[in-house]
Amino acid sequence: MTKPLNPPIFATPEDVETAFYDAIEKQDVDALMACWSEEEEVVCVHPTGQQLTGLTAIRESWQAVLGSASFRISVTPVAHWQGMLMALHHQLEMLLVGKEETPHGPLHVTQSFIRGAHGWRLTSRHASAAGEPGEALPESNSHTLH
Amino acid sequence: MTKPLNPPIFATPEDVETAFYDAIEKQDVDALMACWSEEEEVVCVHPTGQQLTGLTAIRESWQAVLGSASFRISVTPVAHWQGMLMALHHQLEMLLVGKEETPHGPLHVTQSFIRGAHGWRLTSRHASAAGEPGEALPESNSHTLH
Repeated sequence: MTKPLNPPIFATPEDVETAFYDAIEKQDVDALMACWSEEEEVVCVHPTGQQLTGLTAIRESWQAVLGSASFRISVTPVAHWQGMLMALHHQLEMLLVGKEETPHGPLHVTQSFIRGAHGWRLTSRHASAAGEPGEALPESNSHTLH
Repeated sequence: MTKPLNPPIFATPEDVETAFYDAIEKQDVDALMACWSEEEEVVCVHPTGQQLTGLTAIRESWQAVLGSASFRISVTPVAHWQGMLMALHHQLEMLLVGKEETPHGPLHVTQSFIRGAHGWRLTSRHASAAGEPGEALPESNSHTLH
């Protein structure tokens, strides 16, 4: 696995999250992987229901995702919990794929962060589609969910 | 909302979790709600994609769920992170509904906990179905996921 020579320092969970979404938008797998903890267990659940554990599996999966299309993600916070060494963000994501103008989503996303040697890092991301079977949420109603 | 006169003291996140699954099995909404924090924001995402915020919405939803059927849940831990005041459990759940003998699932579940005045309490639960569209995971393969 490629390890950055100078790992970035993220002073807050919000800094990691900004870097994470920037990396997705730039389709930059190295920058995206620099957001994940190298000291802790890491888990990523994609909205497809696929679960990945460990940096190698997470890298390979995001390489495939970012190689297939570009994404822009807009985030609506739902709830944040912040401790000295751990933080948790629960939020809604809307996705713009490639040059499409109609957003996909919303996704429910729970992301957790731990503070380590190089500041804050992502330890888990759990994303899943919103809406109930047979009761799909109109995309324009996403603001009523929080 | 009914508030228990003597709120239980949960010494660890594991104690809350055990009480939570016991309450589901016993279809006891009061016991289930005693697991949630009354001091923090609370969020629950059901595997249907429905998101609930706040104790009132969470109680009503679980009242409907537990009123419709009994559940037994078996849990396979995937990753745990534990701090002084916050903890996060990521795990797989298999569900036995009523007297059925074939389990449903697995579900990916992320649960977060915060330590407060009465010990540890649940602050968020995010559950979603495992498996990719067109690539359903055979239930017997759930052990290969972690």
